[in-house]
Amino acid sequence: MYKVVFNVEGKAPVEMQIGKGETLLEAARKAGVMIDSPCNGNGTCGKCRVRVTSGRVKSPMTTHLSEEDVQAGWVLACESVIVEDVTVSVPDAASAFQNQMQITGLSEGESKNIRYVRKKMLSLGMTEADSLRQEICALPEPSIDDNLADEERLKRYFRQHLGFSKVHIGLGVLRKLPDAFRENGFKVEVTYLKTSEDRAEILDVRPAAEKARVPYGIAIDIGTTSVSACLVDMTSYEIVAKASLGNAQAKYGADVINRIVHTEKPGGLKRLRDAVIEETINPLIGQMVQAQGITTEDIYTMCLAGNTTMTHLLLGINPDYLRREPFIPGANQPEEIKASEVGIRINPEGWVYLAPSVASYVGGDITAGVFAVPVWLQDEFTMLVDLGTNGEIVFGNKDFMMTCACSAGPAFEGGEISCGTRAIPGAIEEVTINDDDLKTVYKTIGGKDPVGVCGSGIIDLICEMKRTGIIDGRGRINKDIDNPRVRFDEYDIGRYYLCDKALDGVAQDVYITEVDIDSFIKAKGAVFSAIQTLLTSMDMPVEVLENVYVAGGIGSNIGIENAIALGMLPDIPVDKYYYIGNSSMQGCYLALTLNEGKAKIAELAGNMTYVELSVDPGYMDAFISACFIPHTDLSLFPSLAQ
Amino acid sequence: MYKVVFNVEGKAPVEMQIGKGETLLEAARKAGVMIDSPCNGNGTCGKCRVRVTSGRVKSPMTTHLSEEDVQAGWVLACESVIVEDVTVSVPDAASAFQNQMQITGLSEGESKNIRYVRKKMLSLGMTEADSLRQEICALPEPSIDDNLADEERLKRYFRQHLGFSKVHIGLGVLRKLPDAFRENGFKVEVTYLKTSEDRAEILDVRPAAEKARVPYGIAIDIGTTSVSACLVDMTSYEIVAKASLGNAQAKYGADVINRIVHTEKPGGLKRLRDAVIEETINPLIGQMVQAQGITTEDIYTMCLAGNTTMTHLLLGINPDYLRREPFIPGANQPEEIKASEVGIRINPEGWVYLAPSVASYVGGDITAGVFAVPVWLQDEFTMLVDLGTNGEIVFGNKDFMMTCACSAGPAFEGGEISCGTRAIPGAIEEVTINDDDLKTVYKTIGGKDPVGVCGSGIIDLICEMKRTGIIDGRGRINKDIDNPRVRFDEYDIGRYYLCDKALDGVAQDVYITEVDIDSFIKAKGAVFSAIQTLLTSMDMPVEVLENVYVAGGIGSNIGIENAIALGMLPDIPVDKYYYIGNSSMQGCYLALTLNEGKAKIAELAGNMTYVELSVDPGYMDAFISACFIPHTDLSLFPSLAQ
Repeated sequence: MYKVVFNVEGKAPVEMQIGKGETLLEAARKAGVMIDSPCNGNGTCGKCRVRVTSGRVKSPMTTHLSEEDVQAGWVLACESVIVEDVTVSVPDAASAFQNQMQITGLSEGESKNIRYVRKKMLSLGMTEADSLRQEICALPEPSIDDNLADEERLKRYFRQHLGFSKVHIGLGVLRKLPDAFRENGFKVEVTYLKTSEDRAEILDVRPAAEKARVPYGIAIDIGTTSVSACLVDMTSYEIVAKASLGNAQAKYGADVINRIVHTEKPGGLKRLRDAVIEETINPLIGQMVQAQGITTEDIYTMCLAGNTTMTHLLLGINPDYLRREPFIPGANQPEEIKASEVGIRINPEGWVYLAPSVASYVGGDITAGVFAVPVWLQDEFTMLVDLGTNGEIVFGNKDFMMTCACSAGPAFEGGEISCGTRAIPGAIEEVTINDDDLKTVYKTIGGKDPVGVCGSGIIDLICEMKRTGIIDGRGRINKDIDNPRVRFDEYDIGRYYLCDKALDGVAQDVYITEVDIDSFIKAKGAVFSAIQTLLTSMDMPVEVLENVYVAGGIGSNIGIENAIALGMLPDIPVDKYYYIGNSSMQGCYLALTLNEGKAKIAELAGNMTYVELSVDPGYMDAFISACFIPHTDLSLFPSLAQ
Repeated sequence: MYKVVFNVEGKAPVEMQIGKGETLLEAARKAGVMIDSPCNGNGTCGKCRVRVTSGRVKSPMTTHLSEEDVQAGWVLACESVIVEDVTVSVPDAASAFQNQMQITGLSEGESKNIRYVRKKMLSLGMTEADSLRQEICALPEPSIDDNLADEERLKRYFRQHLGFSKVHIGLGVLRKLPDAFRENGFKVEVTYLKTSEDRAEILDVRPAAEKARVPYGIAIDIGTTSVSACLVDMTSYEIVAKASLGNAQAKYGADVINRIVHTEKPGGLKRLRDAVIEETINPLIGQMVQAQGITTEDIYTMCLAGNTTMTHLLLGINPDYLRREPFIPGANQPEEIKASEVGIRINPEGWVYLAPSVASYVGGDITAGVFAVPVWLQDEFTMLVDLGTNGEIVFGNKDFMMTCACSAGPAFEGGEISCGTRAIPGAIEEVTINDDDLKTVYKTIGGKDPVGVCGSGIIDLICEMKRTGIIDGRGRINKDIDNPRVRFDEYDIGRYYLCDKALDGVAQDVYITEVDIDSFIKAKGAVFSAIQTLLTSMDMPVEVLENVYVAGGIGSNIGIENAIALGMLPDIPVDKYYYIGNSSMQGCYLALTLNEGKAKIAELAGNMTYVELSVDPGYMDAFISACFIPHTDLSLFPSLAQ
């Protein structure tokens, strides 16, 4: 056994004993130390960089580290085998991707869209959610003559005073009754769900307090890379806190396929479930309730959306057949489930609603998103493009909806990009490059010191690199450039430095490599060709599009013009595009706060026609043609010719 | 810390470390060693006798041990404080009471009653249970064009082939679908519950096997002292195994009041729950499924009955208010609960039905029992007397039913009697005493060597002791008798030896003390005065009784004549009495196997009028008068005057 010490920036050191032959990444996982590893230990992404400060590990050569890096002790954790006692420094850049939680409000675009759509739906006859209720019940105290059991006493009250002939009281609540009744003279605050005109389900019984409590709900989007949630006051429907956190599953693979592959290892499915529930969702909820000064017991309802793989992993359903032809999910529309059964830490009697999926690669995040956009209310042809680790497209209007999905990889959320990051404070979100000295002019989120580049920044960056001639259409860096920001490593792989410690006096280098640019080109090519294939299947040109809603964690400052210039989005007027942020979470919020929301989402899911791109004969050609900046067929981008 | 070694007869020694100041009983509980302790460590029952074979403990003087016992190392575990390393021998007599499980068939009386009542109910229009069903479903294999999710595929089959428009599939079953579907080409065996004309609830999905499986159910009576269960083939309604086991809660107190008191200690409620579920019910089920060659997963339904305290403890509901005026239960009619939620190890999707209680001291064992007797079908006045640790009485006919309960203590089941035992093999169940030499002529269950006396034997024994003049009407032993079987200890407490090692050459002594007789007299007095008070409240004499059904764990050989002679049962002709065994378990079996059973039991519970004896002004006087053999008012027993 060897002793391994992990020094994580800003945290207490973590010590452990580990057997011979294990890698630093395996050791870190066992010790609960977060190291970003989107490729799940394949040695391909280069993100699990850690620095050995004492002792020695056995590491192969890698293109992800320069000679200088290696001299300084940097290694890839996934490829470094422990052969003696060792001390390792884990940089914040690696851990930040995973575990930095943000509590914020909604973005302006998100707030605006939610307000607008909710008002619209109410005007169309939907009603404000009122099934979750609270009632102060002053029960008559029992006597020898009125000796009804506590449970029957409560039911009698509901029958006589509230008109519910059927009242369900589950075991968890039954256990609370005797003491709750007697703490304040049989005066209790009852939280219940009106499930039909004559039926109530009791969720909670507490001794009545001076001040009425507020019941809360949670809307949550489970993304492959990021998980975002908002806490909702269910009496005012106000969002009182919003938080997001990297999906802790990322350490087992960046995309859904790698995650599914991991479930085939012994205990893999449970590890992934635990990662998303115990290490992501529950901490998120914990932070939000703490910020709001309430407890998890005060949350009685939850609407959750995720892609089909995320839903399977969350529920512990084997996702393996999602990735094997004919791509069949275990379940698209699981029924509402008790929070205690899923393991999500809200009130254990609370119900968790999952937005239904359409198919293996069009999940609840899209059905919820379509509900929120709302494509189904539009007269004009409308498109929703959700840019996540998977890219999903919905096209249609109030009469029909078509949908498809493509695997973009995590590049849009900063994953598998050397210095990529989620849209967190310090992320470079806007970029221009000076024509003369090729210096980057950038803006970071929150104006903080740069920690990396998020999706919107990467789009700007690559667009600017193309414009200034640093790269060509295939994403290769021009070797003739003589500029200190453009360098080639010993393997002849080019890099461009947005921030350089020496040149710019910043705390850390931020750069992009040809490998990163290649990842991005594949991602944007996948999205564009998916849009193109979907429209082609309808025999429609891009010009029919009147509204294109861009959603996802790419960052609110996405430059649409640049995205078009890169050949990522169709070449139609910029004013037809809207960036609306997290449409999935917005859909969950609406489902939470409108009585008719869940039924409407189910109806939408049933009405969407799914196009399976992997068996579409034209898709692969379209994809290959789109893996060029902007595209091998310039006639698709007439505005760029000007 | 001291080392304590427990040598339990017939088992491997158990070693443990324990802190100073703990008692042997506390140590045994921590070590998982069963020592019978009905008074829960009060030092009053004398049942926790163990023998110290090396080392020393600090024990006070006790009337429960003779000087000879003390010389031989016997101590009461509950009062013996550990002060050094010690080795203790735990006799089988103590452990037998708890952990000897019996797998048997029903008794002849039980079988006969069940067959008769079930046939009667079917003739009255009830129908054989058919909501639990099994179906082989050959599902069409999915393709790109028929890409329904597994869950929807199953629902479609149920809709198209079985006519169920609503199909519920819980999370546990969802998790099974993907692999079960693909193991045998989408041919699966589905176990489901028809919950209404158009709704099915899926309980299990397995790859279809060669041979159809049989779904099983369990009927179980949770007694304060004994737990009895039978395993039922739900296709033939045959009872394939019956088993019983001492309720492991007994170590925390013999009667319900002591158990309730124990719940007030930290962790007490959980300990009692674990004792009945983990240490009693689950092992019982485990043994039965093993005997039948099936698994717990094959059991999908369970009907359970117990007194109100047992139900509260099983479900983890605070029972404290059951014993405080005005004696209010937390719940009388809990809804059916998923087995996984209660912690009972049958198929986790299976439902557990609990027979409803009427009041704090008339529980589901009585409502189930009344269903099985069946009082509610009789034209004539009928009485059910359930002789358990609590005695419950139901009186009525098809027009009305009155009920009351009294605390008899565990004497009828052999508890709190020095050499008492449950009705297990070796229990003395029938007794006569020779007039001349006062020798006991006895019969044991199964003809085995005597291990103790069970309820029916105690009735015979005390009756014979009275007849032969060994005791007087107050239960005091006649000091003038000069016979080696009659002895007085150093505290002047008399004993009578049924079996004596020296006199009879048996392996162990079996005796009864004046203290035991006193316990029994109180028990029989409680029952008789309850019967008397109930009839008096209706202004009816005992002569109205046409049928009296005696139920409970007292043993099938109960001598009714002797019970009358002791003043325990009313003095009416013996041929009006029937001993029917465990009526509670029979009621559960009927509820399991008749569609209308559960609704009928609920109806019966609602129609029973409860008389609270503890607030009845006449009861205490009646009880005191009944604490004499046969009674202080001989006019109540005219037949004895002859």
